[in-house]
Order: sequence, then C-alpha cells, then structure tokens
Amino acid sequence: MNKCIELANLAAAKGEVPVGAIIVDSQDQIISESYNLRETGKMATAHAELLAIEQACKKLSRWRLQDCTLYVTLEPCFMCAGAIILARIPRVVFATQDPKAGAVGSLTNILNDDRLNHKCEIVSGICAEESSNILKSFFKNRRKK
Amino acid sequence: MNKCIELANLAAAKGEVPVGAIIVDSQDQIISESYNLRETGKMATAHAELLAIEQACKKLSRWRLQDCTLYVTLEPCFMCAGAIILARIPRVVFATQDPKAGAVGSLTNILNDDRLNHKCEIVSGICAEESSNILKSFFKNRRKK
Repeated sequence: MNKCIELANLAAAKGEVPVGAIIVDSQDQIISESYNLRETGKMATAHAELLAIEQACKKLSRWRLQDCTLYVTLEPCFMCAGAIILARIPRVVFATQDPKAGAVGSLTNILNDDRLNHKCEIVSGICAEESSNILKSFFKNRRKK
Repeated sequence: MNKCIELANLAAAKGEVPVGAIIVDSQDQIISESYNLRETGKMATAHAELLAIEQACKKLSRWRLQDCTLYVTLEPCFMCAGAIILARIPRVVFATQDPKAGAVGSLTNILNDDRLNHKCEIVSGICAEESSNILKSFFKNRRKK
C-alpha cells in the first residue's frame, strides 16, 4: 500500500485527485501500477484501478486476472468495481472509504453480490488515515486556488 | 440503433459476445462506434460502451460528454454504467435487458440513484427483439461447438 500512496502523491503533483493503484501476482510481484489521470488524459475512465487492470491484461496477454490482487488507496467506484468483477480479480485491498461514490461497502458492495458471477475477498483500512489525509489535503489546497 | 446492431454482428463474426455501441453528439453525428472485443483484445474492460466512451473522450479531447447520447444493444453492466456516470453522459438508449448483469434496471439502476452526482435519461426497448435474438443465436451456436 506504501507504493500506492507514492503513486497517489504523483497524481497530486499533476493536479489529479490523488488515488494510486497497483496489481500484484500470486508471488507479490508488481504487474502494473497507475494513478488517476482523468484531467491529464482528458479521459473519463482514467481511474487508477481501471488503468491498472488494463495494463495488467496487456502485460499478461489475458483478460482473466484470477491470480492477482489489486491494491488501491481509495474504495473503488461502480466502474472500477465492475471492472474488478469482469477481470475476475479475487482479492482487493483498499485504504480509505469513499462515502460519496464507493461501490465496495459505502453505497453498496457489488464485490459481494450473490447475483453476480464473481465475488472478491475484500480487505480495507490499511493505511486509511494516510490515504485519506492525502485526499483531504489535495481538496483543501484546490479550494484555496 | 440499427448501426449498433450492425456493430454487434461484426462482434459475433469475430467470436465476440455480440454487443454494439455508438455515441452521438447533440446533432446526432456519430462521435464513436465500437463493439465488444474482450477475447480479441484479451482485455477485461473491452465492452462496447467503455470503448465507445474512451474513443469519444479522445476524439473530443475532454472527459465530459455532457452533450452526447450513448446507444447500445444490451443493458450496460456495472462497469459501463459507472463509466457513463463518470463521463456525465445525459442520455442512454439501450435495446435489450441483461437480467444477469444489467445495472440499468435489471439488478439495480445506478443511472437513477439520488446518492450519485449524475443521473441519466434512459430509453430502453428499441430494437430489443432483434438485439436479443443476435445474442441468443450467438450463444446457441457457441454451445454447438
């Protein structure tokens, strides 16, 4: 998660909402790493998790990431949680909750929905305060401008 | 929607689950068109709608598609409906429902959720039978193989 926090700080330095994500394989080797690039990339879908999933599929030349774990500093939104299901990622670790848009416990939890064809193990709260403080500090500074 | 059905047929010809999507601007000009490419692209996120949104953002050089309408042959899943919200698309027209994974009326409707910061006008049922038959025929043929 420390690596994700580094990535979130890189996002903040670019004026992007600071969220960082990595995907690791079953040997804990990093397969992909990314951070939010919505403004820089002028791309609605450029959330850290979605970019990490796309990079991992490219790197591994397959759409099933059934042996991977995704780490991210913020609770995934509906798009990213939906992508986690589509990629069959079995384990997601996130730091802090997103009460406004989080789809993994805040608004609902689509990673633990019996109606869908995939479920995830979810771990949350690791480095939560640090990840949350990076976001709070970013929005505080942005309001000043 | 006829254009989307043409695109869905192109997907089927490649052995992809046949779903087609287009995005048009306020003058009904096509901005982007795409179809499902999960297998060919070895990409978990390569649903027709997500590809159409990404292409439209690239073409228009902006992440807000607030003047666009998305047409698609199948009810969007959580990932795609989430991407529609993130791109601020105000109007979505889909043909047939997806009772197993649809996030726009079947399992839930996240495009009409007061807790989120964007809502969509939704039109459904146009060319529903044709779009549904293309999918049924695809899965029937696949089971035979």
